[in-house]
Amino acid sequence: MDSPINTHHRLLLTGAAGGLGTALRDRLKGNCTVLRLSDTADLGEAGADEEIVQADLSSAEEVDAMVEGCDAIVHMGGISVEAPFGAILQANILGVYHLYEAARRHGVKRIVFASSNHVTGFYKQSETIHAEHPPRPDGFYGLSKAFGEDLARLYFDRHGIETACVRIGSSFVEPKDRRMLATWLSFDDLHRLIGACLSTPVLGHTIVFGMSDNAVTWWDNSRARHIGYVPRDSSDVFREAVFARTSAPDLNDPAAIYQGGAFVKAGPF
Amino acid sequence: MDSPINTHHRLLLTGAAGGLGTALRDRLKGNCTVLRLSDTADLGEAGADEEIVQADLSSAEEVDAMVEGCDAIVHMGGISVEAPFGAILQANILGVYHLYEAARRHGVKRIVFASSNHVTGFYKQSETIHAEHPPRPDGFYGLSKAFGEDLARLYFDRHGIETACVRIGSSFVEPKDRRMLATWLSFDDLHRLIGACLSTPVLGHTIVFGMSDNAVTWWDNSRARHIGYVPRDSSDVFREAVFARTSAPDLNDPAAIYQGGAFVKAGPF
Amino acid sequence: MDSPINTHHRLLLTGAAGGLGTALRDRLKGNCTVLRLSDTADLGEAGADEEIVQADLSSAEEVDAMVEGCDAIVHMGGISVEAPFGAILQANILGVYHLYEAARRHGVKRIVFASSNHVTGFYKQSETIHAEHPPRPDGFYGLSKAFGEDLARLYFDRHGIETACVRIGSSFVEPKDRRMLATWLSFDDLHRLIGACLSTPVLGHTIVFGMSDNAVTWWDNSRARHIGYVPRDSSDVFREAVFARTSAPDLNDPAAIYQGGAFVKAGPF
Amino acid sequence: MDSPINTHHRLLLTGAAGGLGTALRDRLKGNCTVLRLSDTADLGEAGADEEIVQADLSSAEEVDAMVEGCDAIVHMGGISVEAPFGAILQANILGVYHLYEAARRHGVKRIVFASSNHVTGFYKQSETIHAEHPPRPDGFYGLSKAFGEDLARLYFDRHGIETACVRIGSSFVEPKDRRMLATWLSFDDLHRLIGACLSTPVLGHTIVFGMSDNAVTWWDNSRARHIGYVPRDSSDVFREAVFARTSAPDLNDPAAIYQGGAFVKAGPF
Amino acid sequence: MDSPINTHHRLLLTGAAGGLGTALRDRLKGNCTVLRLSDTADLGEAGADEEIVQADLSSAEEVDAMVEGCDAIVHMGGISVEAPFGAILQANILGVYHLYEAARRHGVKRIVFASSNHVTGFYKQSETIHAEHPPRPDGFYGLSKAFGEDLARLYFDRHGIETACVRIGSSFVEPKDRRMLATWLSFDDLHRLIGACLSTPVLGHTIVFGMSDNAVTWWDNSRARHIGYVPRDSSDVFREAVFARTSAPDLNDPAAIYQGGAFVKAGPF
Amino acid sequence: MDSPINTHHRLLLTGAAGGLGTALRDRLKGNCTVLRLSDTADLGEAGADEEIVQADLSSAEEVDAMVEGCDAIVHMGGISVEAPFGAILQANILGVYHLYEAARRHGVKRIVFASSNHVTGFYKQSETIHAEHPPRPDGFYGLSKAFGEDLARLYFDRHGIETACVRIGSSFVEPKDRRMLATWLSFDDLHRLIGACLSTPVLGHTIVFGMSDNAVTWWDNSRARHIGYVPRDSSDVFREAVFARTSAPDLNDPAAIYQGGAFVKAGPF
Repeated sequence: MDSPINTHHRLLLTGAAGGLGTALRDRLKGNCTVLRLSDTADLGEAGADEEIVQADLSSAEEVDAMVEGCDAIVHMGGISVEAPFGAILQANILGVYHLYEAARRHGVKRIVFASSNHVTGFYKQSETIHAEHPPRPDGFYGLSKAFGEDLARLYFDRHGIETACVRIGSSFVEPKDRRMLATWLSFDDLHRLIGACLSTPVLGHTIVFGMSDNAVTWWDNSRARHIGYVPRDSSDVFREAVFARTSAPDLNDPAAIYQGGAFVKAGPF
Repeated sequence: MDSPINTHHRLLLTGAAGGLGTALRDRLKGNCTVLRLSDTADLGEAGADEEIVQADLSSAEEVDAMVEGCDAIVHMGGISVEAPFGAILQANILGVYHLYEAARRHGVKRIVFASSNHVTGFYKQSETIHAEHPPRPDGFYGLSKAFGEDLARLYFDRHGIETACVRIGSSFVEPKDRRMLATWLSFDDLHRLIGACLSTPVLGHTIVFGMSDNAVTWWDNSRARHIGYVPRDSSDVFREAVFARTSAPDLNDPAAIYQGGAFVKAGPF
Repeated sequence: MDSPINTHHRLLLTGAAGGLGTALRDRLKGNCTVLRLSDTADLGEAGADEEIVQADLSSAEEVDAMVEGCDAIVHMGGISVEAPFGAILQANILGVYHLYEAARRHGVKRIVFASSNHVTGFYKQSETIHAEHPPRPDGFYGLSKAFGEDLARLYFDRHGIETACVRIGSSFVEPKDRRMLATWLSFDDLHRLIGACLSTPVLGHTIVFGMSDNAVTWWDNSRARHIGYVPRDSSDVFREAVFARTSAPDLNDPAAIYQGGAFVKAGPF
Repeated sequence: MDSPINTHHRLLLTGAAGGLGTALRDRLKGNCTVLRLSDTADLGEAGADEEIVQADLSSAEEVDAMVEGCDAIVHMGGISVEAPFGAILQANILGVYHLYEAARRHGVKRIVFASSNHVTGFYKQSETIHAEHPPRPDGFYGLSKAFGEDLARLYFDRHGIETACVRIGSSFVEPKDRRMLATWLSFDDLHRLIGACLSTPVLGHTIVFGMSDNAVTWWDNSRARHIGYVPRDSSDVFREAVFARTSAPDLNDPAAIYQGGAFVKAGPF
Repeated sequence: MDSPINTHHRLLLTGAAGGLGTALRDRLKGNCTVLRLSDTADLGEAGADEEIVQADLSSAEEVDAMVEGCDAIVHMGGISVEAPFGAILQANILGVYHLYEAARRHGVKRIVFASSNHVTGFYKQSETIHAEHPPRPDGFYGLSKAFGEDLARLYFDRHGIETACVRIGSSFVEPKDRRMLATWLSFDDLHRLIGACLSTPVLGHTIVFGMSDNAVTWWDNSRARHIGYVPRDSSDVFREAVFARTSAPDLNDPAAIYQGGAFVKAGPF
Repeated sequence: MDSPINTHHRLLLTGAAGGLGTALRDRLKGNCTVLRLSDTADLGEAGADEEIVQADLSSAEEVDAMVEGCDAIVHMGGISVEAPFGAILQANILGVYHLYEAARRHGVKRIVFASSNHVTGFYKQSETIHAEHPPRPDGFYGLSKAFGEDLARLYFDRHGIETACVRIGSSFVEPKDRRMLATWLSFDDLHRLIGACLSTPVLGHTIVFGMSDNAVTWWDNSRARHIGYVPRDSSDVFREAVFARTSAPDLNDPAAIYQGGAFVKAGPF
């Protein structure tokens, strides 16, 4: 399943200048004929088979222009860390509304939405959850992602727009601490997961946890197997090194107990 | 369980000028020593043991002043029908944030939040759901109520503020059509339910469907029995009359099939 | 909810000469304008607002004529006790196929199908089951009823014909033994249940256990509350008398342990 | 269902001198021909149709003599409050083993075992649990009752001895505090429940929560409906008085949050 | 687990001339000493350790002769595509009755029954189901297989005959379209699965989905792990080629949405 | 994940002279700096980085001395076969109480408790169970292990001591019979599992089945994935040999049907 399949003519990647956007920019080229990149930050020159459309998610007009002409969307844009409510409101709540309205107007029928494990950050690290466990957001950021998932559900039930809400764990080059041994998602597995979401015949409205094939995990993707995501990386190869450079967690600290980690204590409030 | 118990000194009722607010204004007096009423619309003169504090939910300052000094809140305010996204965003999304921030600052520990059956309006009328079924909002209004429920969850997990999210069915003097035979909540039962939420020793974060003891129902409150809500009214006494003046539903019409009724087709989009 | 509501113009009652058919013949008149009665046995004279159409369920032609012109069907016909497979095959398997084919051809959109507790007769009397527990038929009769339920599901999924599969317990004038204290369904409650099935706005494909409000029960109807069935009778008034004239069950006897009672041992095989 | 039915010739009541034993001594006479009473404490004179057999549960011989000749057992004996482990071990762990061994030897086939809500005392008061939730005992007493339930399961699976494990809430003349509004079991309802356990045709190994028909409840008996227990009392008539003489719970206190109440903090360790 | 284990002396393979029968004819020889082959079509010459018994499933006598002397049965016979009801009734409903009656008479205690994914064809391709989801047959063929599963359950509960109902997906040399990427079962995996059913110490009455280790799947076999089936093939090696020669499904077409594929629209009715 | 990580300074291994204790003695050295060994039987000379402390579990004092100074405990001690109740009571019931009291006094916060598949031995071999299925012990031994699991739960809820209750299947050099093909746990996998329990950041109170990656299995560990146990061995390599030297089970024998095997019939009673 590893070589990407070209399933869409013009694919929009939002948040293309961010960490994950950058990791996906090259990888997604095999999934489409034209890759349209968007961000508020600088994206450099458009490469071969690339288009660049700057857009601010809080502007309905800019979002509309960004979406027009696309067949599918990988929405990595918006704020991806804890932030004051007002900023979250603009980028992640108003922004996701603008995106789906534009998709509805322009007939885009499939979206991969970057949700987050912080939608369920207040579950304990000793609990296994699946996608139908009720949200327990660990901050405004997680709350806005829960909102996006529900909005996507509405646009599926009313307009037939299919969405994969990918609750991304910790997608970095490698896991940084013991918690990330559970939450790690390699860039290649992130790409595999998005490719599966884009190509599976029937996606529906699906929530899937974005993680590699880690030994320790808190998330159960057994209800999302119609996507066909098969991770090929694992945090286990980093396990010994991570243990060597970190110490055992203090189980009196909420950041050590809850799945959201430090997010459960973060933020301006 | 019928006579209300005075459990709080100063109780805030928002949306006090609306349909349900008006129905509750007299009824809630037995639940508190002082009833503070708030709305943007005119509330008339403050009666005995009443206070009036006008406030716009989209203003952090006004909401703060409204909440200060209260022990508990019954939040009926905001928009309670389908409306354009921008209006919903101000009143129901920003508004509920303002409310909980004020509650946090002023140490209010218990809130009854008027949620709605439109959080799950895209389930079918032949399905029985309980509070842990994933949201399937039938419009922006229902979506904003799902957001409020998740935000309340966050303030419980992080700040210990208890909330009952009451998914109100159809609270009117009597049921108007066949669908409302299932969704009807009498004003007295609405008051009983709120009184139970205010007085139960441990509320936690709880979602409860607001309905009377109707024969036909789609909602299962068996996980909210710690609230102690026992309805005493029923739509059944209106059944014969409702059938006489209405015709059988057209099962090709989404408004007839889904729990949300006409809301599944309503709205400006 | 007790007085029946006239919801259909011409209602077909099959098996009208049987025990339950006879009990329903008068009671169902309030539910329709014209009651068409059918059986292979003699039905006497047609009364006011009655029609009589003799039909053998194993004959496609006779069933077609029986169904033509009707708006809804209460299907009590067929064999209702354990019998040799060949007889069951004709009356209950081929017969139910003929009935639904006729309903499909003639646009009948709602059927109440007399299923049986013998679909699940091999569960123990100390188990509580609901409609989604897998079938465990206790003989050919129960097996044919499981078949009818599945066939009704097919005609709902493909043709939109709604069916209530009523798994009738023991519908007699009064409970005859200790087992029937659990399974008893009074004739009036049987009629209430059928009336609810005919009048609920959205029926879907629903399985409901047919029992009165007995203290002892093995069946959970909580997923069929959209029907609005509220029993008003109870076997409890017969309890003392039944205990006085019967002895304690021998728990080494399968007929005493399983829900199906003597059916688990009955039959020609 | 209210008048007791004589279902057994000689019925043994252990712990007959305790609070519940005393409440049951008169009430159980209708359920049997001869009521054998046992305790280590003085039981006074044997009344009509009574027998008295003193026995210490930690003595295999005394327990054997106590059980011999009986048809069924209502086991209220042993320690019913938190106590040092050694005492619990003798009375409740060794004691229940002696009881079931004696029952096995003498062919007693049905036992009502007084278990306790303290088997699950570490669930929160905002959670609804049923009998299959894993035990979360709140002390040695609750732990010993969990042991008794498991031992009863073994004797059912291996020897066919049926047991109802009745997790008694708070069985007193009236509820003493706000927690007991949820947990209260009137003496009459206790008797109704035991009578149902003794008379239901097939009991199996069943766990049932012992509570009256209280508005607030944390326990779900829907899987034990084959017993036929229908409570007729309710704590609700005491609600107003209890609220008047008690204050709101401190939700920082484990004793206020958990179902076990003060037991979660009690005990010698 | 790959080399077959000889677990039975004489093993009967019905439908031996069909596509799967042919694929199994050689493969099953390692599982038995004598392989008896049966079909209505020509089976050629009996090979070494083979026996040939022609039989029409609708004939009780021929089925009885076919079964006599066997130790176990792999029942691939009957109609395996959608067909008129009358034909299905003879081959698959009457036929499976004849087979189990013969097994009962001759003491055959283990049967592998070729059921079908069309028992649940009306679930969506975005749903994951397990064996206890209620049947949603997509036609008469699927309906007859649901009947066979229920009949097998009856013969297990009453007569102790163990059956594995194998809901075969798409067993061909390779997957033909995008749907079959999910449903594909290689011939070798089919054989592995049947071998596991024949050799597992305790089979009980079990439903298992017959699929290879495909990335995309809709079926959850986690409740059938006592069989010990471990697939070794996967449709993934065909994925790129299948995508290259097929186009994206039209999600307005039921055949594209439902698990049963074109079967949901097939058939003479 | 294979090379053990040194997570604790002084690790106590009880039952160190037994079969599993011996297998673990060398293997656990990599998991700690000092391995303290305890048993009532002779343990030979203390090796490098070993300490030996003889202790009888029924003696509070000896257990206290044994535990003092340790950081974590692997509790393999006590009786590990069926035995008379009195012996079980001393070693496994009183013993486990002594152990946890000592842990509480000395601040030990993590324990791996050798529980047993005999806690659930009365489930059938055709059933798949997970850790939250209610206990169905197959004898006094299994009953005592259920007690230990519940006691560990109490010490977690009240004192924050984390425990992994490892329900060990059959841990031998190789599987001895067909049942052990399902229950087998290699010594290396046992060590991997214990190492995972010792090192996972948040353990909580967790029940996990101890088995290798066998094809046939009855146990579902999907709720214990936060431990990070990944077995690397499998009974499948022994399958052919086991089948060759054993015969098919007699399904009329409880020892062949139930998961507990011969234990369901064993014991002094």
